[in-house]
Amino acid sequence: MILRIGVIGTGAIGQDHIRRITHSLQGAEIVAVTDVNAELANKVVKEEKLNAEIYGNGHEVIEADNVDAIIVTSWGPTHEEFVFASISAGKYVFCEKPLATTAKGCKRIVEAEEAHGKPLTQVGFMRRFDRSYRQLKKIVDSGKIGEALMVHSAHRAPEAPGFSGDMALTDSLVHEMDVLRWLLDDDYVSAQVLLPKRTRFAAEGLQDPHILLLETKKGIRISVESFVNCQYGYDIQCQVVGEMGTANLPEPASVAIRSEANLSNEILVDWKDRFIDSYDVELQEWIYSTIKGEVSGPTAWDGFVVAVTADASVEAKKSQKIEPISIPERPDFYSKSHVLHY
Amino acid sequence: MILRIGVIGTGAIGQDHIRRITHSLQGAEIVAVTDVNAELANKVVKEEKLNAEIYGNGHEVIEADNVDAIIVTSWGPTHEEFVFASISAGKYVFCEKPLATTAKGCKRIVEAEEAHGKPLTQVGFMRRFDRSYRQLKKIVDSGKIGEALMVHSAHRAPEAPGFSGDMALTDSLVHEMDVLRWLLDDDYVSAQVLLPKRTRFAAEGLQDPHILLLETKKGIRISVESFVNCQYGYDIQCQVVGEMGTANLPEPASVAIRSEANLSNEILVDWKDRFIDSYDVELQEWIYSTIKGEVSGPTAWDGFVVAVTADASVEAKKSQKIEPISIPERPDFYSKSHVLHY
Amino acid sequence: MILRIGVIGTGAIGQDHIRRITHSLQGAEIVAVTDVNAELANKVVKEEKLNAEIYGNGHEVIEADNVDAIIVTSWGPTHEEFVFASISAGKYVFCEKPLATTAKGCKRIVEAEEAHGKPLTQVGFMRRFDRSYRQLKKIVDSGKIGEALMVHSAHRAPEAPGFSGDMALTDSLVHEMDVLRWLLDDDYVSAQVLLPKRTRFAAEGLQDPHILLLETKKGIRISVESFVNCQYGYDIQCQVVGEMGTANLPEPASVAIRSEANLSNEILVDWKDRFIDSYDVELQEWIYSTIKGEVSGPTAWDGFVVAVTADASVEAKKSQKIEPISIPERPDFYSKSHVLHY
Amino acid sequence: MILRIGVIGTGAIGQDHIRRITHSLQGAEIVAVTDVNAELANKVVKEEKLNAEIYGNGHEVIEADNVDAIIVTSWGPTHEEFVFASISAGKYVFCEKPLATTAKGCKRIVEAEEAHGKPLTQVGFMRRFDRSYRQLKKIVDSGKIGEALMVHSAHRAPEAPGFSGDMALTDSLVHEMDVLRWLLDDDYVSAQVLLPKRTRFAAEGLQDPHILLLETKKGIRISVESFVNCQYGYDIQCQVVGEMGTANLPEPASVAIRSEANLSNEILVDWKDRFIDSYDVELQEWIYSTIKGEVSGPTAWDGFVVAVTADASVEAKKSQKIEPISIPERPDFYSKSHVLHY
Repeated sequence: MILRIGVIGTGAIGQDHIRRITHSLQGAEIVAVTDVNAELANKVVKEEKLNAEIYGNGHEVIEADNVDAIIVTSWGPTHEEFVFASISAGKYVFCEKPLATTAKGCKRIVEAEEAHGKPLTQVGFMRRFDRSYRQLKKIVDSGKIGEALMVHSAHRAPEAPGFSGDMALTDSLVHEMDVLRWLLDDDYVSAQVLLPKRTRFAAEGLQDPHILLLETKKGIRISVESFVNCQYGYDIQCQVVGEMGTANLPEPASVAIRSEANLSNEILVDWKDRFIDSYDVELQEWIYSTIKGEVSGPTAWDGFVVAVTADASVEAKKSQKIEPISIPERPDFYSKSHVLHY
Repeated sequence: MILRIGVIGTGAIGQDHIRRITHSLQGAEIVAVTDVNAELANKVVKEEKLNAEIYGNGHEVIEADNVDAIIVTSWGPTHEEFVFASISAGKYVFCEKPLATTAKGCKRIVEAEEAHGKPLTQVGFMRRFDRSYRQLKKIVDSGKIGEALMVHSAHRAPEAPGFSGDMALTDSLVHEMDVLRWLLDDDYVSAQVLLPKRTRFAAEGLQDPHILLLETKKGIRISVESFVNCQYGYDIQCQVVGEMGTANLPEPASVAIRSEANLSNEILVDWKDRFIDSYDVELQEWIYSTIKGEVSGPTAWDGFVVAVTADASVEAKKSQKIEPISIPERPDFYSKSHVLHY
Repeated sequence: MILRIGVIGTGAIGQDHIRRITHSLQGAEIVAVTDVNAELANKVVKEEKLNAEIYGNGHEVIEADNVDAIIVTSWGPTHEEFVFASISAGKYVFCEKPLATTAKGCKRIVEAEEAHGKPLTQVGFMRRFDRSYRQLKKIVDSGKIGEALMVHSAHRAPEAPGFSGDMALTDSLVHEMDVLRWLLDDDYVSAQVLLPKRTRFAAEGLQDPHILLLETKKGIRISVESFVNCQYGYDIQCQVVGEMGTANLPEPASVAIRSEANLSNEILVDWKDRFIDSYDVELQEWIYSTIKGEVSGPTAWDGFVVAVTADASVEAKKSQKIEPISIPERPDFYSKSHVLHY
Repeated sequence: MILRIGVIGTGAIGQDHIRRITHSLQGAEIVAVTDVNAELANKVVKEEKLNAEIYGNGHEVIEADNVDAIIVTSWGPTHEEFVFASISAGKYVFCEKPLATTAKGCKRIVEAEEAHGKPLTQVGFMRRFDRSYRQLKKIVDSGKIGEALMVHSAHRAPEAPGFSGDMALTDSLVHEMDVLRWLLDDDYVSAQVLLPKRTRFAAEGLQDPHILLLETKKGIRISVESFVNCQYGYDIQCQVVGEMGTANLPEPASVAIRSEANLSNEILVDWKDRFIDSYDVELQEWIYSTIKGEVSGPTAWDGFVVAVTADASVEAKKSQKIEPISIPERPDFYSKSHVLHY
């Protein structure tokens, strides 16, 4: 079976997904696209030589008879609406983050799925599909370092041109919020945000770096440094400290060079280079799972939990206090689908 | 266009290629197979649910009208015959090493291609498609370490169950012989083989390790340690020493673990894990090049050069002298097709 | 000039200092010793073949005419008394930590020095003399990574046999409290203590690990993990994150071994091996400074600041709140003597 | 007992030794000096405030009644004469390399010691005293990597201003010739020298780099790259490949810096920084051994063996053939004194 996909939103990330499905992955084809900018949708179909219908809006794509599954890569504030419509239509949907712009919106989607009777939505948190995170999880799960007690992690980017307000928390750290609870098989109970000395490279009026402190149900203490103007590179660090040892997220393989009185390894500067393979794995696994009628990646529930965590983090930044994170028990409904493939 | 492929030989490596073409890669399908063991061919077609005809022998596969290109993964001594027949039929052919069991056989294939008027053959040296070797070549080509002067490399495997005679040179080091001349854009002029103290883990009567010393036209000195019973892992090392610095082949990314008084990173033990991605890239690039009517990987010429080099190495091992390697000038014919994609 | 030293307390650390002064360092000799256990003092003098008088108590040592300087390595609660007496006698004194068991006691010593008119006391914080910390400070001071914004550090020991109560903070983390303000040339303004999930290897009733969060006057945010039952080794980590880069404390040099499918480097298990060279440098610099009439290492003021910081940390652990750290301005009196030698 | 030392030759290295004995080490004092440049000897005595007699020549130093032991740091061609005289006087002597300018000269010294009845001479090969080489030897001796089969090593310096002729072999690689036979507890049976492509940074008429291939009695194969204009740093590499694993010489500890898209560790550029600690250990151990009446470092025999090896290497470079190295059996006389302290 070839999965017939409709894409809502043909901006940068939409085009990327179209290209990988068309040229790199197996088991799917793009049969429908739409974009608020009709011309852009047209151009993409032509350039990629897609055999795809161009629709006037997302709802038409969702309703199209020959569309088996939806990819939502439109403007963030429209995600909730299209995911909701996909569920109503009983179609599987892959939605780039955010699932919805509010926790409430995410909750509504969760409830819609529960009403529908099975999960249909996968949220675009790609780190779970990253080979290095999977290597790390394998070690953590193996018991080799004992029970996890602490996590020290960092999310650094050379600069953050479009960042404003709390985007460091809501746009960038959401990836850590998702991947760390997956890594630890745990949930958060509180958040605190430290505001270190501000770098002179931050845009006017913006705080950078932040340190997000999370506590989990199991009592694990997590610190996540977010430093989006760190200048030197795009660098994702994660160390799990267990009762008997520590394990570090592998760094990307690179050539060790000895020159000019230095032994050096290149550090990536573009986040796309860091996670490009993960996107391939993410979409390929989504295609195969969808064909099987399962959601094996991050579910709407996971999207909801991250939204609640992000809200608490923003509040904690404002209040400068430890803020509780109240997450209801995960419905059994979501347990089965929460499967790790590696 | 979907490239329709006929596979001659459905043993382990043949099955691997069938699986990757069917489940991972794009642009091709298996339409014909054969094996000396007809039952095995049958079984593979069933298990992989191939829509492929089973033929009585390789020549029938090559001649089948709906077969665009051939993959030769049969027993080594039959390679020459099937590559030859593919060229006669004017069909592109991917042949696992060896291209032929003798340098003379390789030469005949080169001459057949010259007679045919364009290259059709790609030899299965997969290291050129390995990401880490490409990273290394990029640094070497960049001039960052100056002109290359020396290469120190090692090819180590935990054990070598089926090895006999000079297989360490003819079966294992041929990969270095191919990849190093590609890496340096150079050719060999002499070979010498040192016989270090024999490990007690070598099979009776077999020498292990070897050190192969190669000199190139540019005067670069290469040493390749071959140690196929090294016990500790499958480990490929390569350091290029240039006029202003050195560059090392990246090691596979792995989790750094601190436990039991050690900071450790896992070393692979199975060569398949080390080069599994390279096979995917190799075949995918071959499919796309073949569709375009080009040979972009190692050509019959490259297979010939490696065969000459391997012969000289075996002679050098026997004579314990420095043996000349005489390689004719590369025909212009092969220059264009020798393109690096990365 | 040979500095004639009197040692008060000939337990383990006292003997170590006696040995290094006698057999490894230059410029000093032990001329007087005492211990509450007179027999032990006797034994040490004999075994080390010291040409030293054995006195009945510390005060007699301090008052001995031929004693130029004092080393206090007696039981912690007696330190304040002997340092005080040394200052009264106008003699230079090297005091192992703690300078006094309370911040008040430290303050009294600071006041005694101010009354005396010049600093005489050096506190035994040896990390400032460690080669790796000095390498790190050199980089931080060079501006290469820009202004420091954050520090992530860890103090791990395999087990903590005699630990009770808050000793992880008051006995072990005091070293970080001292060395980090030296490293950053800064002072603390608040402390918070996180209590991660308790390791099953901690002694009954004891918390382990802790995370100490410190904020500095400059706004730098420091986290110090204290994990004294980490099982795997004695491991001191420190990463300074600056505006343009990061710098890590060097790890002890060790042999990289490839064996049994691992690339591994040994981690130390005994803290003495980690800092043994630092003690030599510490004492040697103390001898030479004392001969010159200076205090170049951590002063009584530094001891006082650490005591205040430790008190706030203990309070923060209890209150689970962010506790302010109020340190008066450093008297000019101490600025000059605060000299770094490297 | 304080060892009273006479120094013959107060040039750079002589002054270094005088300073370390006077200011850093224990158990010895300089009581006599001489130099062909009397003024220089004078200046050194004054500047270092030595309580030392200045003599007109080396023989007067050797004969001085109050001189217990000799350090020969004069011009290379005079070494043999002064070592010979020291042995005649029955005094212990530490001689910087070369022991003599010819293998024959070294042999004469060996014979003089045999006639005298016990070893008196230590040769200044300081690598045996280097902490990193001792760490490596400990691993090799432990059996952890099995029997040694091969050694891959490199001796690189950024530039070689004064080098001429075969100095890369006779002045620089002699350190590897000494330390590798100590490391492996073995002797050489043949040498071969490869001449790689010449770096454009080599002085006119000089070959650089070289690769020296040594075979040992046990059959171990050693390659030593000598690259004295490598530009990038002073870099000593050594990997021992054993039957079950490999072990690498530790690199000097350094700060890992992340900046400007690179993770980098500084490489030393000055050989003095690399081995400065080794000189301290070397001289301190020599002082203590001499006081005990032993030679625990490299003996005259070791100096002789290195001279024979260097001669064979020079010949092998010229002949471009494998040259035999004939070393007589080590006299029992030297076995006892060949003790490793670590």
